[in-house]
Amino acid sequence: MRAQEVLNSALESVRTLEAEAVPVCCAAGRVLAEDVHAPIDLPPFTRATMDGYALRAVDSGRGARLRLVRGERLGAGEAVPVATGDPLPRGADAVLRREHARVEGEHLVVLREVKPGRDVAYRGEDVRAGERVLNAGTVLEPLHLGLLSGFGLTHVRVVRRPRVALIVTGSEVVEPGERLERGRVYDMNTPTLSAEILRCGAQVLGYGIVRDEYSELKRVLVRASREADLVVTTGGSSRGERDLVPKILEEAGEKRAHFLAIKPGKPMAYGVLNGKLVFALSGWTAAAWVTFEVFVKPVILKLGGMCYSPPVVEAVAEKTIRSRRGRRDFVRVVLSRRNGCCYAKPLEVQRSSVLLSLARAHGLVEVPEGVERVEAGARVQVRVLRNAGYTFP
Amino acid sequence: MRAQEVLNSALESVRTLEAEAVPVCCAAGRVLAEDVHAPIDLPPFTRATMDGYALRAVDSGRGARLRLVRGERLGAGEAVPVATGDPLPRGADAVLRREHARVEGEHLVVLREVKPGRDVAYRGEDVRAGERVLNAGTVLEPLHLGLLSGFGLTHVRVVRRPRVALIVTGSEVVEPGERLERGRVYDMNTPTLSAEILRCGAQVLGYGIVRDEYSELKRVLVRASREADLVVTTGGSSRGERDLVPKILEEAGEKRAHFLAIKPGKPMAYGVLNGKLVFALSGWTAAAWVTFEVFVKPVILKLGGMCYSPPVVEAVAEKTIRSRRGRRDFVRVVLSRRNGCCYAKPLEVQRSSVLLSLARAHGLVEVPEGVERVEAGARVQVRVLRNAGYTFP
Repeated sequence: MRAQEVLNSALESVRTLEAEAVPVCCAAGRVLAEDVHAPIDLPPFTRATMDGYALRAVDSGRGARLRLVRGERLGAGEAVPVATGDPLPRGADAVLRREHARVEGEHLVVLREVKPGRDVAYRGEDVRAGERVLNAGTVLEPLHLGLLSGFGLTHVRVVRRPRVALIVTGSEVVEPGERLERGRVYDMNTPTLSAEILRCGAQVLGYGIVRDEYSELKRVLVRASREADLVVTTGGSSRGERDLVPKILEEAGEKRAHFLAIKPGKPMAYGVLNGKLVFALSGWTAAAWVTFEVFVKPVILKLGGMCYSPPVVEAVAEKTIRSRRGRRDFVRVVLSRRNGCCYAKPLEVQRSSVLLSLARAHGLVEVPEGVERVEAGARVQVRVLRNAGYTFP
Repeated sequence: MRAQEVLNSALESVRTLEAEAVPVCCAAGRVLAEDVHAPIDLPPFTRATMDGYALRAVDSGRGARLRLVRGERLGAGEAVPVATGDPLPRGADAVLRREHARVEGEHLVVLREVKPGRDVAYRGEDVRAGERVLNAGTVLEPLHLGLLSGFGLTHVRVVRRPRVALIVTGSEVVEPGERLERGRVYDMNTPTLSAEILRCGAQVLGYGIVRDEYSELKRVLVRASREADLVVTTGGSSRGERDLVPKILEEAGEKRAHFLAIKPGKPMAYGVLNGKLVFALSGWTAAAWVTFEVFVKPVILKLGGMCYSPPVVEAVAEKTIRSRRGRRDFVRVVLSRRNGCCYAKPLEVQRSSVLLSLARAHGLVEVPEGVERVEAGARVQVRVLRNAGYTFP
């Protein structure tokens, strides 16, 4: 299967998860599972929007003298002091701002005429009861939480967070903090992919570092496929003696693809176990990360009710990029802007075994299967990896 | 003070907070407090990057017959089977891929010649010990966590999260879930601003809803200014009898500005209490939100070691926008793209008392103090409020 077919097949295999109710205060970034209709008017009553005096606009001729009263209703020739947010007394249709009035004992002298509706927020003028205010599928922003709370809602139905199992394989992999014996390397995949999974709005089910031992690995994989909505493994995805994940997929589930014509990430396998998708990524962090970005992230987001459209900018290639016909390359580039034009410069090191150049890249240029060479000066689409400005925590 | 002066004054009053050590696994989105130098080489030893046979490239003439041995070193005419990630035996300088070799008993026949360094990752080729890999001020991305872990680091020094106190004032404000009596409204500010504060990478210290009562409010404000790095209040920021926050600022601290010439958000006050900045925002959620975005967010981000540059796009105004000379307006617009051009259409309702139109806006057009009118067809800068694609949780 080609890269695009694998992605399409994976996306077709999953559906957005079921809904759950969560407190409104914790719902930022969650995806609405159903439309929300306003249960009440907003504001729930007609309110003054400034400090001053409620009155009938028809009484507010300049120099008019009104009787100051207190209460929930007023009549002709009367005015009631109100503060911002107060209910407007019945009978009133405008607010005269404090600075436009002069108080003389029990009376008020109008210094500026007002029109009906002046400094008044009518009941339901923001939202009418029954109105649809938010659509299913909306990613909840802080302001949406404010609206929901304004209706008095304490909970909201959102798509459940996907549970993503992460299994790092490799007998040579040890946890940071341990002593590094010869031939051992520290686990770089757990922190990298855990953080990426969380950023997709999903939960991480961590299964730790698993040795390259068939029965142990199979036990963990089967358990993960039961407990999670999606399984991601790293390492052991090639076809050597120690590459057990594709074998287990083949024997206990369904191996749908293996050895994609992509760079980096080629020894990736993809299949199904216990009805759950399994992505077996390379053990090299740079390759695992790129294939996560390209194949796994869109699937996690679909499970979570979102659609992934990676940010793309158009740029001019600063150097010739060589690829191989029939292979899809993801080339690390740095971006720069000169004379109003964006330039993409391929980084010198593109190897799967090198992470720093990926961590320093601003984006990836995707060279499709049919292209062998992108000439210097040609226009390219760059998948942007870093957000400008600041990043959400 | 004008809007820009208030922002400058506030930014000048705060410094980035001190550092703290946190586990690498929890450091995504945090800001590095100091440069990180690699404590070890990465990879820590020279490794095979493919499955196959380690050998001396000079021995790999096509058809050559090599003796298969096992061990940590090899000599002339010898080959050692290796799997991806294995240490390269001493004496070897290349890997012959399995598919390019034929095994005949104790011997190997070379099917394709290899050059020195083929399918080998040299010790330190990714990062050399001592090399500076990350600069202070970096917002940590998932891949950075992978690098740190690759060095065996378990903790990293980052800027402490700012603690932001949130105080919602107003005797008429009740919590969602309670019964709504006449004249009462539900609290929309706590959920909205809490979520925004969290998004800035800060912690929220919530002080609940406080009645418009001088001594109680003063007690809470003083306590908040002791416990937090920054204090945000909503409501009671105007100059009526119930508007106590500016009074308390004046009497117990320092009131630096009040009634800014901005729309929405005019009755905002800004000052200092116990050496901490206090932003007293309007009680109307739309106004509070805009002033939070314009004045408070940049300050929280500076405390947290980040610099705020809101995303801005250039667009063509679809309608004439009227403002008042001497006032800075933040006009809610929706964006659309037609014929390769971006258009900004002002929403009909711009009132502080209306939240839905802000929740539906794509951006804000900032009309500076010296401008009374932006003609339809004029180019405007739009501060973008929503991220396209998906949002980080």
